[in-house]
Amino acid sequence: MSHNGFGLLFRVTTFGESHGPAIGCVVDGTPPRLPLDEADLQRDLDRRRPGQSRHTTQRREADAARILSGVFDGLTTGTPIAVLIENTDQRSKDYSDIAAKFRPGHADYAYEAKYGIRDYRGGGRSSARETACRVAAGAIARKVLGAGVVVRAALVQVGDDRLTVPRPDWDWAEVDRNPFFCPDAATAARWAERLDAVRKAGSSVGAVVQVEAEGVPPGWGAPLYGKLDQDLCAALMSINAVKGVEIGAGFGAAALTGVENADEMDPGPDGRPRFTSNHAGGILGGISTGQTVVARFAVKPTSSILTPRRTVDLEGAATEIVTKGRHDPCVGIRAVPVAEAMVACVLADHALRHRGQCGGPLFGGG
Amino acid sequence: MSHNGFGLLFRVTTFGESHGPAIGCVVDGTPPRLPLDEADLQRDLDRRRPGQSRHTTQRREADAARILSGVFDGLTTGTPIAVLIENTDQRSKDYSDIAAKFRPGHADYAYEAKYGIRDYRGGGRSSARETACRVAAGAIARKVLGAGVVVRAALVQVGDDRLTVPRPDWDWAEVDRNPFFCPDAATAARWAERLDAVRKAGSSVGAVVQVEAEGVPPGWGAPLYGKLDQDLCAALMSINAVKGVEIGAGFGAAALTGVENADEMDPGPDGRPRFTSNHAGGILGGISTGQTVVARFAVKPTSSILTPRRTVDLEGAATEIVTKGRHDPCVGIRAVPVAEAMVACVLADHALRHRGQCGGPLFGGG
Amino acid sequence: MSHNGFGLLFRVTTFGESHGPAIGCVVDGTPPRLPLDEADLQRDLDRRRPGQSRHTTQRREADAARILSGVFDGLTTGTPIAVLIENTDQRSKDYSDIAAKFRPGHADYAYEAKYGIRDYRGGGRSSARETACRVAAGAIARKVLGAGVVVRAALVQVGDDRLTVPRPDWDWAEVDRNPFFCPDAATAARWAERLDAVRKAGSSVGAVVQVEAEGVPPGWGAPLYGKLDQDLCAALMSINAVKGVEIGAGFGAAALTGVENADEMDPGPDGRPRFTSNHAGGILGGISTGQTVVARFAVKPTSSILTPRRTVDLEGAATEIVTKGRHDPCVGIRAVPVAEAMVACVLADHALRHRGQCGGPLFGGG
Amino acid sequence: MSHNGFGLLFRVTTFGESHGPAIGCVVDGTPPRLPLDEADLQRDLDRRRPGQSRHTTQRREADAARILSGVFDGLTTGTPIAVLIENTDQRSKDYSDIAAKFRPGHADYAYEAKYGIRDYRGGGRSSARETACRVAAGAIARKVLGAGVVVRAALVQVGDDRLTVPRPDWDWAEVDRNPFFCPDAATAARWAERLDAVRKAGSSVGAVVQVEAEGVPPGWGAPLYGKLDQDLCAALMSINAVKGVEIGAGFGAAALTGVENADEMDPGPDGRPRFTSNHAGGILGGISTGQTVVARFAVKPTSSILTPRRTVDLEGAATEIVTKGRHDPCVGIRAVPVAEAMVACVLADHALRHRGQCGGPLFGGG
Repeated sequence: MSHNGFGLLFRVTTFGESHGPAIGCVVDGTPPRLPLDEADLQRDLDRRRPGQSRHTTQRREADAARILSGVFDGLTTGTPIAVLIENTDQRSKDYSDIAAKFRPGHADYAYEAKYGIRDYRGGGRSSARETACRVAAGAIARKVLGAGVVVRAALVQVGDDRLTVPRPDWDWAEVDRNPFFCPDAATAARWAERLDAVRKAGSSVGAVVQVEAEGVPPGWGAPLYGKLDQDLCAALMSINAVKGVEIGAGFGAAALTGVENADEMDPGPDGRPRFTSNHAGGILGGISTGQTVVARFAVKPTSSILTPRRTVDLEGAATEIVTKGRHDPCVGIRAVPVAEAMVACVLADHALRHRGQCGGPLFGGG
Repeated sequence: MSHNGFGLLFRVTTFGESHGPAIGCVVDGTPPRLPLDEADLQRDLDRRRPGQSRHTTQRREADAARILSGVFDGLTTGTPIAVLIENTDQRSKDYSDIAAKFRPGHADYAYEAKYGIRDYRGGGRSSARETACRVAAGAIARKVLGAGVVVRAALVQVGDDRLTVPRPDWDWAEVDRNPFFCPDAATAARWAERLDAVRKAGSSVGAVVQVEAEGVPPGWGAPLYGKLDQDLCAALMSINAVKGVEIGAGFGAAALTGVENADEMDPGPDGRPRFTSNHAGGILGGISTGQTVVARFAVKPTSSILTPRRTVDLEGAATEIVTKGRHDPCVGIRAVPVAEAMVACVLADHALRHRGQCGGPLFGGG
Repeated sequence: MSHNGFGLLFRVTTFGESHGPAIGCVVDGTPPRLPLDEADLQRDLDRRRPGQSRHTTQRREADAARILSGVFDGLTTGTPIAVLIENTDQRSKDYSDIAAKFRPGHADYAYEAKYGIRDYRGGGRSSARETACRVAAGAIARKVLGAGVVVRAALVQVGDDRLTVPRPDWDWAEVDRNPFFCPDAATAARWAERLDAVRKAGSSVGAVVQVEAEGVPPGWGAPLYGKLDQDLCAALMSINAVKGVEIGAGFGAAALTGVENADEMDPGPDGRPRFTSNHAGGILGGISTGQTVVARFAVKPTSSILTPRRTVDLEGAATEIVTKGRHDPCVGIRAVPVAEAMVACVLADHALRHRGQCGGPLFGGG
Repeated sequence: MSHNGFGLLFRVTTFGESHGPAIGCVVDGTPPRLPLDEADLQRDLDRRRPGQSRHTTQRREADAARILSGVFDGLTTGTPIAVLIENTDQRSKDYSDIAAKFRPGHADYAYEAKYGIRDYRGGGRSSARETACRVAAGAIARKVLGAGVVVRAALVQVGDDRLTVPRPDWDWAEVDRNPFFCPDAATAARWAERLDAVRKAGSSVGAVVQVEAEGVPPGWGAPLYGKLDQDLCAALMSINAVKGVEIGAGFGAAALTGVENADEMDPGPDGRPRFTSNHAGGILGGISTGQTVVARFAVKPTSSILTPRRTVDLEGAATEIVTKGRHDPCVGIRAVPVAEAMVACVLADHALRHRGQCGGPLFGGG
């Protein structure tokens, strides 16, 4: 247990600070004999890597993942898989300002209040850099899930500008073609302009991400405190800067009537029910129904901005702060591959937990 | 671990089905020598109890909590506190319809898919009745937190009708005077009319609840996977019918700029910073800041409605179902005291975890 | 987690004190659709029940187990199974002596040092009475394991008097015929005489118990911190008064050479290796080998004796104490069914964990 | 949770195989602001390091520990501390023999049965090399415990040759002067001769280690499943090749009467009771008493020996095997510093757990 890991059977523990020698993770509980190599991790890591467009931080890290254990002859052995990612671009910089003052909206003050010490260089443990570890773990989780379960995410809102293209018209191929993971090229172009303006104004902007998992069989999850939706929410909420999470119709469900919200069922061709709608987001009573699992989460604008903000210093005196450096004007963008990874990890854990309690073959890998 | 408990140091495990002999919980890890008796639990249980107005289910349960262990001479002993609540109003009823068919929007199908068996009487384990255990545990958690931390909640939306009274004008005393836990009498009256209409239409309606914790000191929580906001979200999401959770500005934060979202700080009179706003909802980087902790969650309309809905039966054939019985037209109402309890439990757990890692001298108990 | 439960997937949480209203347990994670009723629990509980011979405490409890949840139509549902055992024989008694003084060798002082409070009536939480909950949980675990795994235990030493009958000549049927769970009638008769003498002398005596599990398939356990032998040792060590645990050759292995200790293998008729000896006790590298799992543990003599012992009182002053009451002269006797239960629970947990990680059908039930 | 870590608040997760690129651990939950640098780890690692005498394996690893995270400006930050130890002496070798055959008494067969794959090079995950990670974690645990708690261990038996020097006459300074961690020089000389003979005979030999913790205050531990002795036993049992563990009088307690076994109490000079003996090994009812905590464990002889043993190969056919290579003739020797580390980790975890549940005011960090 303790504070830096998640998952019961498929358990991920991460470590590392932004400007220490390395970050990494230990993934414990992976089924044996799954094909895995570093290229599997790298594919997803490359999607998260910063510096690929002008819309993300210009910090340039190779983010090269090295597998230190748990794989033999190209197959998982069932023992813990340690992944190491060296920090290579630790640009020497003057941190005296953020060492002595608390950035409003940043974790600075809370860390200081809790620990009485913090590694302020580049945000230390609270840096978005840590999410590379999650992406590496997520790539392993995808192997556990197998090809039958497809987890993918898209950016659906930048600031107050929502993607208005209806869900059936989304183009998933487009998601990897623009720097916003946006399933519509025209919207991506609009967001690019907006973000340029935000950056020039020395500010930042929030975002909303939608993540979906297709192919999840009915039965994963548990009724009350091991709910699949609960664990998904916790996993998404654990991503830096996330302030809200919803499943299916989400907050919109509050405004529906029971008549509207009920996802009616017809006999399906495979013996399973076919649902006529998916307000539930693929989960009822904490357990998957076989429909696509759908979650959305809100990412706040980063607090590292060029506009001066009022704050206090370590001694409690009033002062102002401006955060210089290479920051993401919209941290929600890079949260897209991170969200996929977190959802994949939670699903892998629940797949194993379900097989443990209820038996039968695991859907997909292993 | 496993699936029916939560918390690391202050750990709650619940058991029981709607129509079995009893429900209950075991609360493990409570500090010793806290004054506790059954009346402490009953106060909160009575607020959750159904049948107190026409707007909640007419099932009438005494919900009398009996403490079986862990208390001696009126003080907690530090050993597990078991609480038992007998099921007294198990009205004999014909369950053949819901035994054979799946209610759309209900956990029926998911349970069947997972376990191949379900106690269909009154919803079994998925019944809202289980939340009485949470309320009992929450009353114990309040003792752990002491009088300095005040956790309270209110209903802020019924269907698409939001409470429009600004937060500073809320009347907390009013919350316990109307059947909606609404901090404004006029709004409560409006909701009463609306709910009468919904009930007459044989439907149900969703809701939004806001829960706040005042007096939480800075420093509770942990950076990444033991985040206070993450654990609060998981706890609230574990309540039946909840489909979305947000902290502070929540989904609204996505539409803010970094300039707007930053909660600026001034020197406060007690040496701590005084924040000029609370978009963060009292939590930054997963750790409390000393501001009021604020969470909101959406409750979907119950699927147990009198309007016929299309579904399939156990054999997979097409059919229709109507759910008769004593159901809440708006399950969000009774979620209010449940939310308080869950937040109190999470805070108690994090209070102890923080003390474990960061607090006081190691030697010398008490 | 926390302090009063064990197991990861098959998780047992117990509660209750000797002289409170009831004791009980919650068993979470049981596979669904296993036949289970109260008679299944009662069979094992009756073997542990005190007052069945002059060699155990004369306290007479019905130890009637009531299942409160998790079973429907005679089958487990996969939701938590709560078991309640009322305390019926709480003979009114003067506890002022043990309230004010610490019994040497008893948990009194340690509880007081930790909690600053203790329920001293009948030993409170540290009473052997709690082990009834373990036995109930163990009966459920046996259902998970199915008939293919047989867990049984025997007393093999009383005081310094060891059972000398070689293991192949043990008579398991005899175990349930004498009050010592001894697999040899003549030895049982000898122990009866010895125990009469001990009791008359106002003293007590220690014991050693051997527990075996036949039919455990190879592959249960995990390499390093989820070792099957480690979890067995922890489970047995958690029984009151146990001071040592060993697996297979145990402490005797220290005196062997590598040549002697190696369990050589031949091809077996079923494709699995056939071992020519079992110094390993059925576990190598933390993982079962398919041989019989063998553990032994030492139980100290109870500290509740009629001979006066020097001690201090709550104020720290020197005094003497004599423990009157209905105590077991050899608590090791009743530890026999408790040991079976604990081993069954650990095996059930590892069976599910193995199925979770490595898949395939679970050997036995579920 | 999962299988490769231990501890609730002070949690250690290890990874790595004998012949992979590196081994390491992540230590989560350390209190902040403790002075820590790599030299602190190295001191203990150097005591465990092989190749320092002819009595341990001649594999020569630098065992240089690198701290990757969790330390800033020489102080712990409260975030996870990752420790990396590169594998430098992976002598190229022909592993075809142990790849194709199972060594009797070794984990080979069990791993194959569980996972269907194993990294056979140098024992893979089951190599004693992994214990270096434990020693590194233990050095951190010592910092948590502070100077007031002293954990030290000694070898007390090699094969059937026991140390006969009475405990009060042990010379702890001698422990670090001879290659056996023996508190008596003459005994060490005798063991050296014996071990030379064992090695020449192509065999190996078992051992017994005693570990003690002085300065543990009363109150650490928990009554039933979070027992201090239970967690110590589990931790020691998790060390490779350990087959039995005992606390205080241990198996000897079975032969004592209650009169003999009771550790009588007198008023002590500091207000705490002074015990006249320590059969309990410093723990009663699962909770420390303030006396020295004493544990002993048995280590079996290594199965990697030069004497041919009968076995089967991967196809199940009968064959013979001889294990060449650089093996410890008595793995018990190097278990001494490992035991200290494991005990320190368990004590650190319980220190924090006790402070969490029972210690100090809830509010106000530090």
